[in-house]
Amino acid sequence: MRDVEGGVCAPRGFRAGGIWCGIKAGSRKRDLALIYSDKPCTAAAMFTSNRVKAAPVLVSREHLASGLLRAVIANSGNANACTGEPGLAAARRMAELAAGEFAIKAGEVAVASTGVIGVPLPIAAIESSISSLADSIRADAAGHEAALEAIMTTDTRKKAAAVELEIGGKKVRIGGMVKGSGMIHPNMATMLCFVTTDAALSGELLDRALRRAVRRSFNRVTVDGDTSTNDTIIIMANGEAGNALIGAEGEAYGLFAEALEVLCVRLARAMARDGEGATRLVTVNLQGAPGEDEAECLAKAVAASSLVKAACFGADANWGRVLCALGYAGVDFDPDKTDVYFASSAGEVLVCRGGASVPFSEEEAKKILSQEEIEIRIELHGGSAAAQVWGCDLSYDYVKINGDYRS
Amino acid sequence: MRDVEGGVCAPRGFRAGGIWCGIKAGSRKRDLALIYSDKPCTAAAMFTSNRVKAAPVLVSREHLASGLLRAVIANSGNANACTGEPGLAAARRMAELAAGEFAIKAGEVAVASTGVIGVPLPIAAIESSISSLADSIRADAAGHEAALEAIMTTDTRKKAAAVELEIGGKKVRIGGMVKGSGMIHPNMATMLCFVTTDAALSGELLDRALRRAVRRSFNRVTVDGDTSTNDTIIIMANGEAGNALIGAEGEAYGLFAEALEVLCVRLARAMARDGEGATRLVTVNLQGAPGEDEAECLAKAVAASSLVKAACFGADANWGRVLCALGYAGVDFDPDKTDVYFASSAGEVLVCRGGASVPFSEEEAKKILSQEEIEIRIELHGGSAAAQVWGCDLSYDYVKINGDYRS
Repeated sequence: MRDVEGGVCAPRGFRAGGIWCGIKAGSRKRDLALIYSDKPCTAAAMFTSNRVKAAPVLVSREHLASGLLRAVIANSGNANACTGEPGLAAARRMAELAAGEFAIKAGEVAVASTGVIGVPLPIAAIESSISSLADSIRADAAGHEAALEAIMTTDTRKKAAAVELEIGGKKVRIGGMVKGSGMIHPNMATMLCFVTTDAALSGELLDRALRRAVRRSFNRVTVDGDTSTNDTIIIMANGEAGNALIGAEGEAYGLFAEALEVLCVRLARAMARDGEGATRLVTVNLQGAPGEDEAECLAKAVAASSLVKAACFGADANWGRVLCALGYAGVDFDPDKTDVYFASSAGEVLVCRGGASVPFSEEEAKKILSQEEIEIRIELHGGSAAAQVWGCDLSYDYVKINGDYRS
Repeated sequence: MRDVEGGVCAPRGFRAGGIWCGIKAGSRKRDLALIYSDKPCTAAAMFTSNRVKAAPVLVSREHLASGLLRAVIANSGNANACTGEPGLAAARRMAELAAGEFAIKAGEVAVASTGVIGVPLPIAAIESSISSLADSIRADAAGHEAALEAIMTTDTRKKAAAVELEIGGKKVRIGGMVKGSGMIHPNMATMLCFVTTDAALSGELLDRALRRAVRRSFNRVTVDGDTSTNDTIIIMANGEAGNALIGAEGEAYGLFAEALEVLCVRLARAMARDGEGATRLVTVNLQGAPGEDEAECLAKAVAASSLVKAACFGADANWGRVLCALGYAGVDFDPDKTDVYFASSAGEVLVCRGGASVPFSEEEAKKILSQEEIEIRIELHGGSAAAQVWGCDLSYDYVKINGDYRS
């Protein structure tokens, strides 16, 4: 497996583009994106677990029921959530508009939105720009870049990746883009992620691979504990790589599923790193748990703790807060056997052994925690399962960004 | 029922005091408190649900098993948590030292600590100051004030109250003090609360009244979602009011339980108001739920949401975040029937009807949300149960306070 350029346009047969249509009224930043496959695709998707679901989520879920897609249309600047019947009509209209440009069915188009909640979507802006959008799509990296820019809100970095691997002698590519920086919590909140591949898979296997990858990537990211109304991940597979259709578990499926997981983990880490106001990527690496579910739950409690996050911002080796967060995770474990390490490119330091303090150099710990990527490593000595969870620190800027988001 | 002065010293037969013994090494702020009853007390208590329990919690739980107490000794500046066997020995020693001063049994003394986790408790400082502490206790408001100061950490306000009511022709008093400002979440985190009363109750009824009051007060406060290793609430009843022993539910019990609930709600609100870095008290008032548990769970999700809290800081009428938080609370409700109001002393404004936006004056909403005490009122139209939850906004200062707490 090797990295390649081009994001969602890296796999054969996909084109993408993004323009400004006027939804982001205060700027001329791109706000409307399209990803299109020249051939019909097998598709799979996962949506927010929030009981309040945005209109595009409801519409895309409907369209995905067939397991087939040709395109995704997405806008930023407006979430089209809590917008009632007019919102639902607007989401359907978005799919129709995109379908009209390519003479495909509206049911073959998925829809996604991100931005402020509760404001009517200015569908007229999309109507008047849909032809320009369709004309703008390209099969190269520039097309991918334009689409990616058009789904960004408070994101400060472009988050995308693409890989190439060989399956049955054929070169297969998987490419993805993700947007999301605030309101991110296990279960993919305010995240839009679009993945393309030229591999040939049955819908069932594609769905299985997606669920496995999401569980170990996006569902292990936490920025602020809020789960959004809009999160969506969609994967489209058009089979252009020419590999024998993957229709059952086996070597080919294993290779594909692992590559997809690697790609999703990379995107998930990038999202945590780009958490609103974040100055550090914090990886919580929990080992020695009785099972993977327990490991994940404990690691998430640490990564999501406001007190741990604030300590990371201050590069303060306050390991007591780590133990405290483990303690309220709702999972049984033995605090008296628990060891905690802080690590980064600057080194590693043991700060707690058997649930109690050990002497360590505060200066060394400060240096370790002052890096841009830090790790909290926890060893429970209670089993052989492990989980990694990604989060970020809690900074002044998080408050600043979210204190007046709508203005 | 009327308010009276004197806090925990308001009920007859209680004395209290607080001194500086040197645990808070960097300042001369009081750090050691004692509350003492001249007569034996019936007692009840509740402790943290965190699996990591501080040594004083373990010791107090043991001592409370008998249901009898004479005194509480408490320190600030050090949580005596994650301190292993030496920590446990230090907590036991604190009880012994207090008992020695009054010729009572160590088992009649409860112990509490609050402060930094994982640092050995300097028990020698307590040993050398215990006589001064015992000598300092007084039955007046000054004694109460000194004890209250000695349990404060990042608290910026003194939080105490006392009430008087009549039960069976006798004047009964209940007084309380509470410390807590950060790391506060449902289940009383990093909260120390001591309540005294001169009412006569059986242990069983005292315990019942305490649990009822805590459920509707301290367990409905959220500051940052973290639940501490140390939280403790203890109530002592010495019977000095001369009322007929309350040994069964009935009018007398009802009067006492309600007064205790009123007192605890007042202390809980004060605690939320004093949340670390808080500029506003936020009351989430949820109505129309199918049951009280559901109402509480939904209201807590709103009060605990970092995005809602940051919007409150910015006085931003971002009601979409309220709906979003309701949506991930894990409770079934109908978003399309939900109304949301923002209210304060400056007025009330409907911002969401039936899950969708309604026109409102942004200027008016801003004015309402700019007050020091604001209310988010939610009407689900799905039943007749209600719950109130108290929280605060999320400000720059929260991050500042917690970014380098240990220094």
